[in-house]
Amino acid sequence: MGYRVNFLPENKEVEVETDTTLLQAAEKAGIVLNTLCGGEGLCGQCRLQVTDGKAQADKNAIGFFSKDELQKGYVLACQTKIEDDLTVTVPEKSRAGETHVLTEGTAIAYSEPEKVVLHRRPYDPASFFEPLVSKVFLELPEPTLADNIADIERITRELRRKVGRDYYEISLACLQNLAEKLRQYDWRVTVTVAWHGNSGQILNIEGGDTTDCHYGLAIDVGTTTVVVQLIDMTTGKVMGVEGSHNLQARFGEDVISRMVFACGRGSLEEVHKAIITNINNLLSTLSQNKKVDVNDITAIVAAGNTTMSHFLLDLMPCNIRLEPYVPTATLYPQVTARELGIQIHPQGILEVMPCVASYVGGDIVAGILASGLADKPEIKCLIDVGTNGEIVIGNNEWLVCCSASAGPAFEGGGSRCGMRAARGAIQKVKVENNEVTYETIGKAKPRGLCGSGFIDIIYELVRNGIIGPEGKFDRPRSDKRLTDEDDPRYILAFSDETESGEEVSISESEIANLIKSKGAVFAAIKSLADYVGLKFDQLDTIYVAGGFGSSLDINKAVAIGLLPDIDTRRIQFIGNSSVMGARMALLSTPAFEKAIDISKKMTNIELSNYPPFMDEFIAALFLPHTDRNLFPSVRY
Amino acid sequence: MGYRVNFLPENKEVEVETDTTLLQAAEKAGIVLNTLCGGEGLCGQCRLQVTDGKAQADKNAIGFFSKDELQKGYVLACQTKIEDDLTVTVPEKSRAGETHVLTEGTAIAYSEPEKVVLHRRPYDPASFFEPLVSKVFLELPEPTLADNIADIERITRELRRKVGRDYYEISLACLQNLAEKLRQYDWRVTVTVAWHGNSGQILNIEGGDTTDCHYGLAIDVGTTTVVVQLIDMTTGKVMGVEGSHNLQARFGEDVISRMVFACGRGSLEEVHKAIITNINNLLSTLSQNKKVDVNDITAIVAAGNTTMSHFLLDLMPCNIRLEPYVPTATLYPQVTARELGIQIHPQGILEVMPCVASYVGGDIVAGILASGLADKPEIKCLIDVGTNGEIVIGNNEWLVCCSASAGPAFEGGGSRCGMRAARGAIQKVKVENNEVTYETIGKAKPRGLCGSGFIDIIYELVRNGIIGPEGKFDRPRSDKRLTDEDDPRYILAFSDETESGEEVSISESEIANLIKSKGAVFAAIKSLADYVGLKFDQLDTIYVAGGFGSSLDINKAVAIGLLPDIDTRRIQFIGNSSVMGARMALLSTPAFEKAIDISKKMTNIELSNYPPFMDEFIAALFLPHTDRNLFPSVRY
Repeated sequence: MGYRVNFLPENKEVEVETDTTLLQAAEKAGIVLNTLCGGEGLCGQCRLQVTDGKAQADKNAIGFFSKDELQKGYVLACQTKIEDDLTVTVPEKSRAGETHVLTEGTAIAYSEPEKVVLHRRPYDPASFFEPLVSKVFLELPEPTLADNIADIERITRELRRKVGRDYYEISLACLQNLAEKLRQYDWRVTVTVAWHGNSGQILNIEGGDTTDCHYGLAIDVGTTTVVVQLIDMTTGKVMGVEGSHNLQARFGEDVISRMVFACGRGSLEEVHKAIITNINNLLSTLSQNKKVDVNDITAIVAAGNTTMSHFLLDLMPCNIRLEPYVPTATLYPQVTARELGIQIHPQGILEVMPCVASYVGGDIVAGILASGLADKPEIKCLIDVGTNGEIVIGNNEWLVCCSASAGPAFEGGGSRCGMRAARGAIQKVKVENNEVTYETIGKAKPRGLCGSGFIDIIYELVRNGIIGPEGKFDRPRSDKRLTDEDDPRYILAFSDETESGEEVSISESEIANLIKSKGAVFAAIKSLADYVGLKFDQLDTIYVAGGFGSSLDINKAVAIGLLPDIDTRRIQFIGNSSVMGARMALLSTPAFEKAIDISKKMTNIELSNYPPFMDEFIAALFLPHTDRNLFPSVRY
Repeated sequence: MGYRVNFLPENKEVEVETDTTLLQAAEKAGIVLNTLCGGEGLCGQCRLQVTDGKAQADKNAIGFFSKDELQKGYVLACQTKIEDDLTVTVPEKSRAGETHVLTEGTAIAYSEPEKVVLHRRPYDPASFFEPLVSKVFLELPEPTLADNIADIERITRELRRKVGRDYYEISLACLQNLAEKLRQYDWRVTVTVAWHGNSGQILNIEGGDTTDCHYGLAIDVGTTTVVVQLIDMTTGKVMGVEGSHNLQARFGEDVISRMVFACGRGSLEEVHKAIITNINNLLSTLSQNKKVDVNDITAIVAAGNTTMSHFLLDLMPCNIRLEPYVPTATLYPQVTARELGIQIHPQGILEVMPCVASYVGGDIVAGILASGLADKPEIKCLIDVGTNGEIVIGNNEWLVCCSASAGPAFEGGGSRCGMRAARGAIQKVKVENNEVTYETIGKAKPRGLCGSGFIDIIYELVRNGIIGPEGKFDRPRSDKRLTDEDDPRYILAFSDETESGEEVSISESEIANLIKSKGAVFAAIKSLADYVGLKFDQLDTIYVAGGFGSSLDINKAVAIGLLPDIDTRRIQFIGNSSVMGARMALLSTPAFEKAIDISKKMTNIELSNYPPFMDEFIAALFLPHTDRNLFPSVRY
């Protein structure tokens, strides 16, 4: 005996059995909902409005809704069993894999700091640009009796003359129609070559001059979000950027729950395929928007943490989460992207950024590469705030690092109005006399808050005395912006201001979570600095990376106690340094080799085995910190 | 309207249309006949006896039969159209792809001289044995918190300790179940590694110690015959040898006609598949006889002329035969044998010996490697008599070579009783007072004559005055051993002495062909020596290679004018040097690298562009030569 569920606005009806959840029904209808927590009722992202039929929000899910919303029939899809024929409306915000294009503004914000960083590279600027794969156009002399070397030798001889490497490797596939192709195109061909040190691997030979059409992808495979940059391999320019939530989220919010899924009740294959689908979707959008033939894309560099790197390559990560935390590999073989199902040129290659250990991944190695942290003798620090916070301190001779679980708060996960840095995200907030002004990405109507918006609002709330240093609301409940709920919410944008007609707000418990996140990050920085015996002001520069959004306000990030209180001119926000590093490696063989060196040089400090960390964490659960001496410049 | 043909002894009946040849009918019945000439009526190998029904030998085919045979209903299958229901008996000798096992005697004969050559290698004997692929057993320490490097790094660390190379490459496939495998087998695994210079490519990782089971193949892909050696990769020993006619022969006897077929009325695919079938058949016989699991075979080195190398790798050779004679490649990529359909370990590799030019192939490069010709300053000569005769003169500094078409005579092709050096082949002949004594391979009843047998019989006939120096019979026709035919035949073994009940004999026209063959080879040697300004006695050593059989009599080969008349202690018969060189490369990475050096160093002299060659050829069509001064030691 089953029920019918009709999903709006698609008007798509499915029949389901008893005991089915609304989430499963939506899947059956082909509607992919945002389930950051893997359908555990924890993230509150899969909100649906039941407009016809009887359904009730699960008790545990009630906290995610206002009274008004509960009355309007809002439920969490994952926590709601179907016990009636239903009509359900799916809000835009509840859909997974948001494919909203990052606005140009955001794309520029991503790439601007990179440009600065690229110019600071220690590599000779003339030789920096040495893409992992390049296209070379050759006009070959026709063979004669006096010069009748083999066809492929004619090509490599010309390559040696023109490019100057010694040794060329070629696959059988490239040889198989070569004789015909050369003669058909009058000895004018374009050769696609992947470079390794002094040797080249010929991936493709095509007739005529096609050097103008040559593209690559730099990918950040984050636990929460996936970002793909389309790169013109001839100029090195970023042609476009697309990002989306990691579709793996439906198997669990964090890497641990996804490993548990892949190694237990689920399968590695499902988790692997999810990320491949992510990449293909983003790739497809990019290639359509930018009118690029996917067959002209010949190289990919992907950076991700160690677990994500395993999932991407279809490697079992089961031992990463079990003591003694052993990954299958930290250096990965070059693979053909098509082997993994990624739809670029059939011979196109994919490189995965080297990782260091189970919890120090290729994303942080990419960040070190992008920031130039390992280039000079000055001691610098890199703080990458993703779902895991990763900290590196070091210089051109030594590197130590650690990681701490920060949760997805700064990436827009785990709270009702959190979203990643996409169109409509509130990225800047100012509160003055209880009047809120904000700025959204793309100047669109607000849809939610991204990481930089959360930092701003917390700072503004504490500065205005609306919350106290422990994060509790300190105002009469009658305040027009404060709701009268068990977990009261401060409203930034009222329903008439927003795109969806739902208010954008932040609750006391969400603030508590953000304080935990910033506390974990700060405690990790402090512990690592103590470990190597350095005071914060001995750090020449602090680079801050992460998907906060385009305009992280460094001063406010210091003021809430997320970042150390040093001269803020020495703190530099560099955005998504993972995708930046991936792009550098894509565009520079020496940079990719440097990344391998970096990965081998890094020493990982396991904070769970480092007792002072927990004390530091507890001391940091305060705005800005229980020890005000650590934040002398902060005044509120 | 069709006919029925019943083939005996199989008792297999097929129905065929009008205009079908017996050859096509046999194919339909699944009976593969020996058609060296590609079904052109030239080689006389596809002899069938029509025992019931009406069929007549084609006029042009009559020369291949005695009167007695014609009366008994013998025809050439390729030249006989079916015009009646027939019963046909297929003699054993007419079947293609003879899979008669080479006798141990022959196998030893192949390997004995090799042993000598191997010991003369300039490589340090301690380091000579460095197989292209080796298996290494590792007992790994279990990971601990203090030593929790990645699984694959644990393997490469131990490999570096145990084997000492720096860099290891691994395919994704090997990583994919690695974590599980290591733990299942208690960290005891056997790693299969292919070596390239200072780096290793991990092909396979299996549980436990399997180092005892590791095999490779050395293959000579000859135009006429294909020889496969099964090698124990742990000891370097030859475990077995199998040979057969090249199945490509049905597309043409020589490389030119096969290229015409592949590039014209036929397809490359058919010709490619024929050689793969050859190899798989021989491999299957070897693995069954020697009880070897084909999955324990991890490496193949194949040597062949340039056209054969192209066919093996499925590369179009069309431009090899057209001025200016350009092959697709002379250096070939390492491939996975399975890519080509060869049934060894799925990750097992196949290397093809480097070639020099369109008509100087990897077989001759292998011969130079095997003979050690390019190792020392002494000037030496290598003469490889296959379907093409190839000559090299040189030392460790320079190498010149040339090739001349010798035809298949010395490999047992093109004559009624010719066969390759297999069980039952007459390999030694002595004639005294018109009494013939002979020795066969495997001491079996005679089945035919192999190359060394042909050389012996020609020498014996001319020494006894049975033929004159121009190769014509000089005896009364009434001689009991001489048949009364237009093309009289000298009988070596009467029908009651032979296995098949058919006499073994040689005809005047076959003798003329052999004189042409030896003339072409000698003229090529003489031309090349003149080209570099050397007299024969300035050659330190002459190595003679080829599929003559196990016991080439050097003195007789000189006496008929095939080889230069120098002190025969300086002439050394080294057998199949192509398969020897392939085996050396298989067992020694430095040897394989040396082969690449050799191929790059060689200068090819195109005899068709060298006018003196034709004069030399005409002068050599005499026993031993028109210029007796060139053969001072020859007395007959």
